[in-house]
Amino acid sequence: MKASKKNFAKKISVDYGASLSGAIGAGGLSEGDLSKISAFVKNAVKKLNARRASGEVGFAELPDDLKNASDIKKYADKLKGKCRHFAVLGIGGSALGPRALIDALAPSFYNMRDLAGRGGRPRIIIADNISPEFVKGIFDIAPVSDTVFNVITKSGTTGETLSIFSAALAMLKKKTGESWKKHIVITTDPEKGYLREFARKNGIDSFPIPSNVGGRFSTLSSVGLLPAAVAGIDIKKLLKGASDAEKICFQEALLSNPAALYAAVHYLFYKKGRRINVFMPYEEKLATVSDWFAQLWAESLGKKKDLKGKDVFVGPTPVKAKGVTDQHSQLQLYTEGPQDKVVTLLSVEDIDSFKVPKMGDFIFGGRDIAELFKAEEAGTALSLTEASRPVVTIKMPKVSVEYVGQLIMMLEAATAIYGEMLGINTFDQPGVEYGKVIAKKILAGAGKVQSNRGNKYRV
Amino acid sequence: MKASKKNFAKKISVDYGASLSGAIGAGGLSEGDLSKISAFVKNAVKKLNARRASGEVGFAELPDDLKNASDIKKYADKLKGKCRHFAVLGIGGSALGPRALIDALAPSFYNMRDLAGRGGRPRIIIADNISPEFVKGIFDIAPVSDTVFNVITKSGTTGETLSIFSAALAMLKKKTGESWKKHIVITTDPEKGYLREFARKNGIDSFPIPSNVGGRFSTLSSVGLLPAAVAGIDIKKLLKGASDAEKICFQEALLSNPAALYAAVHYLFYKKGRRINVFMPYEEKLATVSDWFAQLWAESLGKKKDLKGKDVFVGPTPVKAKGVTDQHSQLQLYTEGPQDKVVTLLSVEDIDSFKVPKMGDFIFGGRDIAELFKAEEAGTALSLTEASRPVVTIKMPKVSVEYVGQLIMMLEAATAIYGEMLGINTFDQPGVEYGKVIAKKILAGAGKVQSNRGNKYRV
Repeated sequence: MKASKKNFAKKISVDYGASLSGAIGAGGLSEGDLSKISAFVKNAVKKLNARRASGEVGFAELPDDLKNASDIKKYADKLKGKCRHFAVLGIGGSALGPRALIDALAPSFYNMRDLAGRGGRPRIIIADNISPEFVKGIFDIAPVSDTVFNVITKSGTTGETLSIFSAALAMLKKKTGESWKKHIVITTDPEKGYLREFARKNGIDSFPIPSNVGGRFSTLSSVGLLPAAVAGIDIKKLLKGASDAEKICFQEALLSNPAALYAAVHYLFYKKGRRINVFMPYEEKLATVSDWFAQLWAESLGKKKDLKGKDVFVGPTPVKAKGVTDQHSQLQLYTEGPQDKVVTLLSVEDIDSFKVPKMGDFIFGGRDIAELFKAEEAGTALSLTEASRPVVTIKMPKVSVEYVGQLIMMLEAATAIYGEMLGINTFDQPGVEYGKVIAKKILAGAGKVQSNRGNKYRV
Repeated sequence: MKASKKNFAKKISVDYGASLSGAIGAGGLSEGDLSKISAFVKNAVKKLNARRASGEVGFAELPDDLKNASDIKKYADKLKGKCRHFAVLGIGGSALGPRALIDALAPSFYNMRDLAGRGGRPRIIIADNISPEFVKGIFDIAPVSDTVFNVITKSGTTGETLSIFSAALAMLKKKTGESWKKHIVITTDPEKGYLREFARKNGIDSFPIPSNVGGRFSTLSSVGLLPAAVAGIDIKKLLKGASDAEKICFQEALLSNPAALYAAVHYLFYKKGRRINVFMPYEEKLATVSDWFAQLWAESLGKKKDLKGKDVFVGPTPVKAKGVTDQHSQLQLYTEGPQDKVVTLLSVEDIDSFKVPKMGDFIFGGRDIAELFKAEEAGTALSLTEASRPVVTIKMPKVSVEYVGQLIMMLEAATAIYGEMLGINTFDQPGVEYGKVIAKKILAGAGKVQSNRGNKYRV
């Protein structure tokens, strides 16, 4: 095997050259490391494909549902000029996916633009916390009579989401009378749950989340597509990009599959003690892709038990960063601190530019801003490799709807492949359930709980 | 020594009870561990105090400069009704500090409120990246003729900041003619540098950053105070809070000093192999305090060499999180993944509330939202300790301007004390300089650079 840089024509690619020992010294990988692992990776991809074939795992099929995308686009286009605010009530994947899409693909500062600057489309407000002042703030800036609430919860039982929804519902009924139903659109399980029933009974618009798609893998379902379409993003092109990536990201041959390559490089470094993956997009518009990725990676791969029920306490820790901003924040630690990290640079090849005007003897005056930006990115990559820190670069030809679709599918596939390599269940989240149980006990028991270990909590 | 919970009347406190072996089992600390380290900590605080006395380190003196705060308040109040946008051109500490203050203390969704909702004050736009589309977006939403640009760079040479400034300046001269000078306010070194000279020559309003205060410790200087005051935040009360914390955070006795306690607990766990500090405020308004803290912690403590010049490659990794949101994202990893983390919960005791309306058989209907919020926080804390993960809680009585002032001073002091314990220079950042050198080489050499190690980069 050769060629550390895998290019896929007009596609996202993964370049692991800066993680090889030739670039970073003894702590780096060799091409032999990749060769040795290729059969293991192949087997992991096979297992994942078997899960797909059995219908257990549905995220990779999402790009095929063009009918749903059409329905969503119709609904979204009708909102144009009809309301000024679109509030997404969702948490976890139901918030992180929509936010990443809108930040990446709607005009910069979308919500701060006036109506014309938004092409007549509503602001998108994402309500993913229940801090009381935050929730009140939402109702301050988005009067219910001028707002459509998109309630997103697959199970129909997410406490945070339903709490805000019930507050919105009470206000809607008071302020808009009979037309309250037009101010709600529900994204939930196609068949089951309280919200599905609520939508049916009241004739409320709704879109499905397929039952074999979990929250953190749901960005390309109605969860992400509806808010994105409302903001004017071309969701069919998004799915086209995802579909293009799907064709290469489930291939068994390591060097033909950027998702497998990304997973394999991180797996190898994890085994060498590098348990932190710093995910650093060089492009402000992709900054919240880091938040989305952090959930995907952390919740999928952080597991106590493997598939055989053995305690493994495994999981790489994703750290969010962004360039060039965090060169002035976290880079010091990444170049000089402990050798416990791999840095993922998400690099955009073709970025927009403008000329920096001359000013005094300012050394960048007269240069293209894109040139400065790219030089800083290169400076970061080189200062990391000089300090023997591995860098993996995901290269996006540009920030377009197709490539963002590719990126999402690629990273989802990479996560699922990595999960198979670790021998864990990528798709469950037992660790978050215990906290919910305790919270409910506290609420039931007048604020007093004693845990198994004897720890007490009073509110 | 007893009492794991140190209370300071009407002050921020640090509760390390949930990191003791009684709470989390064998991996926890004992009160004996704290006793044993107290002389070492005392010595670290002494060294820090000697640096303060010599004038080398200035951040702890910032609350005393009430004259500067008065000048800033006067300037800020004059802007009310005069311009609709206030653009902060700064990066690193010059952006993270102002953002944390405004998010914490201005009304939620400040920038999305209308003029009346902002009390007649300008929006605050923070320009801390040079992605071309992001920069263009700033000029789209903030037309220069209705904007004041606050250029913040201590050295007066920060390339990113000056690039945006030179673009703004060219536009201002074109659009506002002779009055361009009124659209600029400069925050920089009191004596030196290009911007100080520029301000002098052109009679432009300016505020000082004391020369012994570094970027990441500058939030309580003009850097943070000016944008905060423009948003209507009472900066004198902020400084009062910081001053209250200063009185206790440089004391030598471990159990009387919450900053020393916070540093000591983290130091002990770092030595036990827990190198990741998850910083998780439970309050949406404090979410970007995490970003600010991540820079403070990473850039101050991530160092290759100790003060004797020996290679140590030391530094805890800060990870940003927020409650309740990230219960649905990263908590799975924190409770089930590797035992390599300490979780800091930043807990607000007194939060606002409203009653969740009843809806169907929704179990939280009729409850106070604050009760739900607090139960979730408790659920998180208990699910971590049950899984033998140490938790340190910083308790804030409420989110008020005084307590935010306390919090900033406390965390700055904790960082500086931790740095002394590690025997490193908390206040430099040699690792970020190398990247800048490479970037300049690339710009000078037509996009081609070969590094010491033989790595090449082309743009």
